[in-house]
Amino acid sequence: MIEFMREAIALAVKKMRQGQGGPFGAVIVQHGEVIGRGYNRVTSTNDPTAHAEIVAIREACSRLDDFRLTGCDIYINCEPCPMCLAAIYWADIARIYYAADRQDAADHGFADAEIYLEISRNPEERRIQAVQLLRAEALAAFREWQMKTDKIDY
Amino acid sequence: MIEFMREAIALAVKKMRQGQGGPFGAVIVQHGEVIGRGYNRVTSTNDPTAHAEIVAIREACSRLDDFRLTGCDIYINCEPCPMCLAAIYWADIARIYYAADRQDAADHGFADAEIYLEISRNPEERRIQAVQLLRAEALAAFREWQMKTDKIDY
Repeated sequence: MIEFMREAIALAVKKMRQGQGGPFGAVIVQHGEVIGRGYNRVTSTNDPTAHAEIVAIREACSRLDDFRLTGCDIYINCEPCPMCLAAIYWADIARIYYAADRQDAADHGFADAEIYLEISRNPEERRIQAVQLLRAEALAAFREWQMKTDKIDY
Repeated sequence: MIEFMREAIALAVKKMRQGQGGPFGAVIVQHGEVIGRGYNRVTSTNDPTAHAEIVAIREACSRLDDFRLTGCDIYINCEPCPMCLAAIYWADIARIYYAADRQDAADHGFADAEIYLEISRNPEERRIQAVQLLRAEALAAFREWQMKTDKIDY
């Protein structure tokens, strides 16, 4: 386990020095073998979703040709932000290993802890306002999905 | 506003019928003009992060050549899951318009509400375990980031 975490940290440092983005790296492991690597490339690719974990999940899924990483572990040099934590749930990853935590990230200028707070709030108390419109029209699409006989659940 | 929501719902329905993935669509609007569209393509591209909002954010950012969508609004046929809500924060989107809500999604077989619950729990109470390792080694990378003079904050 230590070796995979060292690899995630080394990736974070190397890519930060190259100017790819923030100091974050992630490694996904299946049966003791690395099947996906990612580093933060938000600012170099103009993609705010290009966090290390998202990039690593996409790579591992592409490698396995599967939208689930059941039984895989992820090693990250920092506790995942809520975007990445939820992605880990959607990907059905088995276990998270992390090094620094969200408070360490906050202490070094990252918004992770603030976003955790926002998400835990009721929608009407959040900084970004959410307005509901046309619910009935949207429900028709959901009902059609439920009746769809050839759907692939995820 | 109604027209953009109708477009998000129509996109959800069309792409669901084509078998691209779940019934979700998103449209990003800047100054009254659509600058990004996305639909769920999780199962058709084997990418668990390919939710409508993530796809739309990536498209809009690519169009603007910017990792921030400051001042833009997003129209979604369903309340965003935590992954997508956090992505909306990272992208600095101004306002969210949504139609169905997380409970509607849960009622039609989606895990959004469950993932909201998991994220609001303390890490030690979550279904996916998280184990901390090598924090001190990771902090060295964060300190280096803080001292980096040519970094781009995000």
